[in-house]
Amino acid sequence: MWDRLLVDCNIACLEDRPGSPLGLIENGAIGITDGKIVRVGKRTELAGYRAKQVDALGGAWVTPGLIDCHTHLVFGGTRADEHAMRRAGATYEEIAKAGGGIASTVARTAAASDDELLDQSRRRLHALMRGGCTTIEVKSGYGLDTPSELRLLRIAGQLGKDEAVRIVPTLLALHALPADQKDRRAHYVSEIVDKLIPEAAKQRIATSVDAFCEGIAFTPQEVERVFKVAAHHGLSVRLHAEQLSNQHGAALAAKYRALSADHLEHLDEVGAKAMAAAGTVAVLLPGAFYALQEERKPPVALLRKHKVPIAVATDCNPGTSPMLSPTLAINMACTLFGLTPEEALAGMTVNAARALGLAHSIGTIAAGKQADLCVWQIESLSELGYWVGLPGPERRIFGGKDA
Amino acid sequence: MWDRLLVDCNIACLEDRPGSPLGLIENGAIGITDGKIVRVGKRTELAGYRAKQVDALGGAWVTPGLIDCHTHLVFGGTRADEHAMRRAGATYEEIAKAGGGIASTVARTAAASDDELLDQSRRRLHALMRGGCTTIEVKSGYGLDTPSELRLLRIAGQLGKDEAVRIVPTLLALHALPADQKDRRAHYVSEIVDKLIPEAAKQRIATSVDAFCEGIAFTPQEVERVFKVAAHHGLSVRLHAEQLSNQHGAALAAKYRALSADHLEHLDEVGAKAMAAAGTVAVLLPGAFYALQEERKPPVALLRKHKVPIAVATDCNPGTSPMLSPTLAINMACTLFGLTPEEALAGMTVNAARALGLAHSIGTIAAGKQADLCVWQIESLSELGYWVGLPGPERRIFGGKDA
Ligand SMILES: [Zn+2]
Ligand SMILES: [Zn+2]
Repeated sequence: MWDRLLVDCNIACLEDRPGSPLGLIENGAIGITDGKIVRVGKRTELAGYRAKQVDALGGAWVTPGLIDCHTHLVFGGTRADEHAMRRAGATYEEIAKAGGGIASTVARTAAASDDELLDQSRRRLHALMRGGCTTIEVKSGYGLDTPSELRLLRIAGQLGKDEAVRIVPTLLALHALPADQKDRRAHYVSEIVDKLIPEAAKQRIATSVDAFCEGIAFTPQEVERVFKVAAHHGLSVRLHAEQLSNQHGAALAAKYRALSADHLEHLDEVGAKAMAAAGTVAVLLPGAFYALQEERKPPVALLRKHKVPIAVATDCNPGTSPMLSPTLAINMACTLFGLTPEEALAGMTVNAARALGLAHSIGTIAAGKQADLCVWQIESLSELGYWVGLPGPERRIFGGKDA
Repeated sequence: MWDRLLVDCNIACLEDRPGSPLGLIENGAIGITDGKIVRVGKRTELAGYRAKQVDALGGAWVTPGLIDCHTHLVFGGTRADEHAMRRAGATYEEIAKAGGGIASTVARTAAASDDELLDQSRRRLHALMRGGCTTIEVKSGYGLDTPSELRLLRIAGQLGKDEAVRIVPTLLALHALPADQKDRRAHYVSEIVDKLIPEAAKQRIATSVDAFCEGIAFTPQEVERVFKVAAHHGLSVRLHAEQLSNQHGAALAAKYRALSADHLEHLDEVGAKAMAAAGTVAVLLPGAFYALQEERKPPVALLRKHKVPIAVATDCNPGTSPMLSPTLAINMACTLFGLTPEEALAGMTVNAARALGLAHSIGTIAAGKQADLCVWQIESLSELGYWVGLPGPERRIFGGKDA
């Protein structure tokens, strides 16, 4: 006797099944017990099983719960005024002079109490959950010193305890160089590798370490120092790479078997090949591309050619991607980057799980996986790529329970 | 004794007040009776009044309920497969050969029962309402003959009766030439002016008549025939103009004192001046610009220069703008077209009301207006332009009642 049986639905397992790489099952059924999927198949295949609760879904489509594998969710204040200044014609320089940019978020984050940060972040979290997310990665990165970064990771962890969602906290160790460290770059990076990373590892407060490799941020050499220490402490690594220029960050990430390299607008073929060989996921972030009104798109054809797994995320952050909707990320991945709806859906399920190192437990609908599901009142799966501003699924199931 | 008093809020009246063109009131209050606003002002100014119900809004911002002044909400099926084919590399020609385009929506609309159309349209309507809409214009246009167009207007009207939202049905008299009328253009237009428009006027089933003036649709001369007959029957007119090319439709619309000219990517200065002189509203539709990935933007500087009122709408339709979120329309108007958040907000409130000929009763917060309001849990008004995929207001008040 299972806890729950979902019937009268079509299912996109996102896992290879005979005749369907996406694992599509028409008129399927899903058995759930103890928060996990115990069996999935055609309704007829599960005919002999009984459950305490049977839900008829009226012909809806069921997908894995959405996974937003790249967000900077925890921050204080917004940068709405800066955004408005840009629309009104202000230059970046004027905005910086008026105190804008990452520095302003760092200051507002420091000024906010834990409760204020929790409240503000929770509102954004609820928006992502309403959009269908059952797992959300949350990076630190607006602290810029050891106690502040650890505080942001604690707050991210707290949100995961409070809410019906899985939070995956990532230490964004190298995000921006604080203004007062401009002449002490090496010293700043030493603090990160000698104190912050070991402490985060010791407290088991993050499973991955991330960095921002860019002309305006950190060099490949600085990133490499961080990657070495992360590996030493048993932490996975990820990288913000090739967003504004080609720093060969993707190849560096692959060298360290990074879970993912993210953004990738300027990725070249050497980088794509290296990622493919290392199994490093390409995380595409159309929200940042859109909000910054960039022109150069990530080389999707190259990623396809070399079979690099593609994930899609909101990049929810106050400066370059104030995006609150995973369904919009899916639509933008199709509209702006030319992904197919199936690719974009895989990008927020199975491949997003890989980018988090969690492919063993989430991201597809299969026996043994967590019962994290979305139920969509749509006729065809392609509607997930089609609607612009789809509110979210009719039902979001987290660990087997309607949430 | 009023029915209701809203306090502990900031208010954007969208109506000129001393010292504030946008009518911003910090720590304001709104009195409501019989579904209408009876008084708005500083909390202190309304101190002497009492109400049966007092709502403290926790410092939230209150704006007029959003008005989506341009949608094609009632249609059968979707065109998601077509959208997916485009992403997978299919050309428009291939899609047309596979039965795509407006013709496919016309066929699916004809094939759907009234109940099916109501159900499908209601889901879209709920999404727009959740996003903050209290008034939604709905065009016919997927019928293409007299009984079918009247049916779509009836269905739009029915939605307005069923739901806590004001529906404004518009007869889109000239949308596309049916395939079997290719050699009988003049005859087709005669049917419209001799039968459809008089019948719609007689049944009082629409207050405005719209048309699509474009190289691929109808000529200015054909539009003029429609406008003359509409005027004769006391109906207002609007026009899809200058979307893909400059047909001088805006000037034509102004000549007939159209409520609005919509799209306007190819508007020239003569057209802008004519619109300004006639009081014709420019309705900008960033969703279509986005979904079609157009490059030419409407000339916002020209509209500002000549003081043409600017409205913003979703253009919700199955082909060129499958957009379900008014807050996203506001964000896209800022991000893609460079409107300020204040302009975009005015575009979905006061100026949208003008585009519907309803400025006397909705679109601003002022004594005598309908109590249609949105309550937003935001720090500053500019957040409405800033967030990408904001779900909607915390509360939507329609005719004085939480809805
Ligand atoms: Zn990022
Ligand atoms: Zn239209």
